[in-house]
Amino acid sequence: MSPLAKERASVLSINPYQVWHCGPIFSQVASTVGPVRVVATAGQVGVDAQGVLIKDPEAQIEQAFKNLRRCLEAAGARVQDVFKMVWYIVNYDHKNRLYRKSLIEFLGGHRPATTACAVLALAEPDYVFEVEAYAAVPQSPVQSVDVVVVGAGLSGLKAAYEVQKAGYSCLVVEARDRVGGKTYSVDPLGENKYVDLGAAWINDTNQSHIYALAMSLGLDMIVQNTTGHVIQEDIGGQLSSYAYGDVPKELAEPHSVEDMIAIRDLTEKICQSIDLYHPVATGEDLDKYTLEDWVKQKGLGKTALASVTIWTRVMLGLEPSDMSALYFMDYCRSGGGLLRMRSDKNDGGQYLRLVRGTQSISEELSKLLSHEEILVSAGRGDIRCKRVIVSIPTPLYKEIKFSPSLPPAKQELSHFNKLGYQMKVMLLYAKPWWRAHNLCGMLQSFKGPVCVTRDSSVEEKGQYSLTCFVSGQKGIELSTGTKQARHAAVLSQIKKVYSPFVHGPIPEPLEIAEHEWANDQWAQGCPCPVSPPGVMTKYGHALRTPYGKVHFVGTETAFECKGYMDGAVRSGERGAAEVIHMLSRAGI
Amino acid sequence: MSPLAKERASVLSINPYQVWHCGPIFSQVASTVGPVRVVATAGQVGVDAQGVLIKDPEAQIEQAFKNLRRCLEAAGARVQDVFKMVWYIVNYDHKNRLYRKSLIEFLGGHRPATTACAVLALAEPDYVFEVEAYAAVPQSPVQSVDVVVVGAGLSGLKAAYEVQKAGYSCLVVEARDRVGGKTYSVDPLGENKYVDLGAAWINDTNQSHIYALAMSLGLDMIVQNTTGHVIQEDIGGQLSSYAYGDVPKELAEPHSVEDMIAIRDLTEKICQSIDLYHPVATGEDLDKYTLEDWVKQKGLGKTALASVTIWTRVMLGLEPSDMSALYFMDYCRSGGGLLRMRSDKNDGGQYLRLVRGTQSISEELSKLLSHEEILVSAGRGDIRCKRVIVSIPTPLYKEIKFSPSLPPAKQELSHFNKLGYQMKVMLLYAKPWWRAHNLCGMLQSFKGPVCVTRDSSVEEKGQYSLTCFVSGQKGIELSTGTKQARHAAVLSQIKKVYSPFVHGPIPEPLEIAEHEWANDQWAQGCPCPVSPPGVMTKYGHALRTPYGKVHFVGTETAFECKGYMDGAVRSGERGAAEVIHMLSRAGI
Repeated sequence: MSPLAKERASVLSINPYQVWHCGPIFSQVASTVGPVRVVATAGQVGVDAQGVLIKDPEAQIEQAFKNLRRCLEAAGARVQDVFKMVWYIVNYDHKNRLYRKSLIEFLGGHRPATTACAVLALAEPDYVFEVEAYAAVPQSPVQSVDVVVVGAGLSGLKAAYEVQKAGYSCLVVEARDRVGGKTYSVDPLGENKYVDLGAAWINDTNQSHIYALAMSLGLDMIVQNTTGHVIQEDIGGQLSSYAYGDVPKELAEPHSVEDMIAIRDLTEKICQSIDLYHPVATGEDLDKYTLEDWVKQKGLGKTALASVTIWTRVMLGLEPSDMSALYFMDYCRSGGGLLRMRSDKNDGGQYLRLVRGTQSISEELSKLLSHEEILVSAGRGDIRCKRVIVSIPTPLYKEIKFSPSLPPAKQELSHFNKLGYQMKVMLLYAKPWWRAHNLCGMLQSFKGPVCVTRDSSVEEKGQYSLTCFVSGQKGIELSTGTKQARHAAVLSQIKKVYSPFVHGPIPEPLEIAEHEWANDQWAQGCPCPVSPPGVMTKYGHALRTPYGKVHFVGTETAFECKGYMDGAVRSGERGAAEVIHMLSRAGI
Repeated sequence: MSPLAKERASVLSINPYQVWHCGPIFSQVASTVGPVRVVATAGQVGVDAQGVLIKDPEAQIEQAFKNLRRCLEAAGARVQDVFKMVWYIVNYDHKNRLYRKSLIEFLGGHRPATTACAVLALAEPDYVFEVEAYAAVPQSPVQSVDVVVVGAGLSGLKAAYEVQKAGYSCLVVEARDRVGGKTYSVDPLGENKYVDLGAAWINDTNQSHIYALAMSLGLDMIVQNTTGHVIQEDIGGQLSSYAYGDVPKELAEPHSVEDMIAIRDLTEKICQSIDLYHPVATGEDLDKYTLEDWVKQKGLGKTALASVTIWTRVMLGLEPSDMSALYFMDYCRSGGGLLRMRSDKNDGGQYLRLVRGTQSISEELSKLLSHEEILVSAGRGDIRCKRVIVSIPTPLYKEIKFSPSLPPAKQELSHFNKLGYQMKVMLLYAKPWWRAHNLCGMLQSFKGPVCVTRDSSVEEKGQYSLTCFVSGQKGIELSTGTKQARHAAVLSQIKKVYSPFVHGPIPEPLEIAEHEWANDQWAQGCPCPVSPPGVMTKYGHALRTPYGKVHFVGTETAFECKGYMDGAVRSGERGAAEVIHMLSRAGI
């Protein structure tokens, strides 16, 4: 494992003798050092991801630098790798260099060679700033191994572990500067009190592979707290509470409690009829419409759809209209059934957590791999190998240039499968104040923006927190604002829904942590890609099929517990078995 | 030895089929070829070394190209390595491309891909032109040797020679396109009549190491001409003459001849009391003030200081106020004493010259090194080695990125030690006209700009020349003007001071040659770095100390004959001995 910080410098800044000294933000000359790959960006302007130009000049400049950073990241380059920048400025004012603040922040002390250029106009009338960069990414000498795994998430690491255990050399390449993929455990207070911004829960029954792995790594677990009442926020904002495990006593819409039960039981029944190994054969009709259409066909009230929406938002970060009904049924079947997946009790999807957070599984697993066999941050040299295991979500296949191209069915899967918006806003508190009022920390809201909260405390570490799921359409709406506005909206809802059940004021959190997976270049969403109607029928067969010497793993390719960490581990084992079989058959 | 001309091209210019042909100054496409290191410059503008913008637009453009050339040189790139240039022009006039002349001169027939960009403004209001370049420096595969020597001057070459003789592999890297460092022999008339623009004289007694080396290389020597009278130009410009070896009969200031003798004899006496191996222990008080202050303490007249000023200018290119009195005394002691160093007679500092010029020593020495073991012009590939010998002046340590950094004492030496302005303007004549008038060709001027002249003819080759020392403050003043103005000032003084002693007109020279060492990126001054007060006391101990596996040589590090070619050779031998000792101790 070679963390970025230890990598060799690829750029040397030079201020030549008798050329004037140019202050802290640039050098007169910059040279690449050693073997490098050169990256050039297009001129970046203040246009956001949706292609909308930002009006305010300073915000436009800030956005341009944000875009530039993302461009570099996408090419595997760091700011320290930049050796040349040019900025083009409309309405340049020598006495008020608007770009200076963003630039200094962007550079963080690094000094490439630069050119400033005041221009009459840029490509569009309202552009005021454009910046381009050239970077040199250090390249290691060509390495040769038996197997390369792309992606150091759980599936990739487990695959690499199995491949190495079978006696083959194996290198894991990873674009991020950390292992763990969509498990991401942080310690916001710096007090060894970890919270999970990504995947968080496992169990010890149907999630047997991840459980066995965590146990073998000696990681401590705790049982999810379900003592006390759940708060229900209804479609119109009406609040009620009921004991964990029950259903709401009464809701605003007539018959709505019955509708909730009916849609739940129907979903459970249908999902159990799906054959995980032949989902299309056992549910082809369900792949003709969306889950929303399927719910609407049942003639139930609005609450039924609101209830299903909570499921898809919290389970997949998407709306019922985003996915095929078959996809959802198969997904539920894979997790052991809807009831089981929704449960925080024994056998349920949210039964156990890890004291050090779930990323510790990947961290510990990577320590078991042979030394230097994880290349954190890729694009830093060519690797020659006999087999490749691709361990990334299908929508991200588009980010890799395969040569020859992937077969059409895989390309279609990559094109149609969709990653959701699922974010956990973690509120860290000094005390678990909700428990004193007979609340288990669970909220279920049909209104949002927070759909669900859960108690994610680790008692033995004194870590007390509520996980607030901001997911699906509600998450996308909040994500357009600033982080401050987002947090304010979450806190305002928490106060509103918890206050009626708590004597006295709701405490302010000590700290708030979040990670917007949908804005993370190497995730592009969370937790598991979803197929819209027709895709499973047409292309589902190609999901796990190797192509030439390239194999595909990742939680979405698991039969059992897809979308879960357990599915990731199982898929990694399956991919490793494929590769080991082919290598040993070839007498390697 | 691989001279630059033979290096492989790193840039391929392409004019694609059916793309318009773009004349002699650029190509439509340029591609790098083979393994290269990429260099990018900041946009270069018409700002001089002091950061002052040049007003005249054409002169501004000329300065921008001058800066660009220096930037490329500092990064080890040549104009032929440039593959892309962009120029940005304010007030662009399609019919009058002001940059064309400077550009064509800069390119010298090379044709990179280019873009011209008429802009509204550049970074500062009065900038009218900015040019940036991208270059590709060809890179050799990584080489492995026992020892790398940085700098192919006399000390570095002698060190390499000794290291190779001891059986170790050794590579010399050099930023210039020639060997010899501050020895630089040119043939301005193209008639095999060499003159020395750098170090010129040796002797066969106290300079025994350089003498032995030159003899072993079979180089012919000639004795310095001292037949005839010396001309003296006094503080007020009054002229007189006296036989070589005497002192002036009379000077403008009363008692000044006595003062000259007194300060000379006192300096001689004190310098002889310095222990070269413990200069601070034997002269610590002298390190508390400058040489100028020391002279002033003696209560002598202006002529005494004028006389000392001549010494420091001609011996070190600096003023008495630039250096610690101890530094100068130690320097004199090192050269065998003031009288000896000032003498052109047997045992003196200017006794012998080389018929082919002193650079021939380095040229011949480099031929004795194993084939291909000098890498002329560095930065053309990485080299792995066991020990490094740095053979450059202390002030230039700053130009090297050491990792880890040099220890503080070495950094302070690099920061405080100062290189002088010393230039020889060589006047080449058809005949040695001064000899016919009983003049030995020596002038000593308290007025300047030429401080001293000497006959530097080589009779047997028909080379007749006067070496005019333009040094210290007088040199700095002349260097701000053009070369033409500088030469005019020199010729005017020569005519003025020689005319009274010559019947008939002073002939015009056939040719004038010079090299401004202070503007030479890889010299930054000449001949030897000087310490101001306090530096020897605080940091002098660190001058020769190796740092890790890095050893330090160069004429300033010699005990005997520092500043001379002899000191360079001795220091090279010392550095080689250090390295050989360490390698053999390590069992290599």
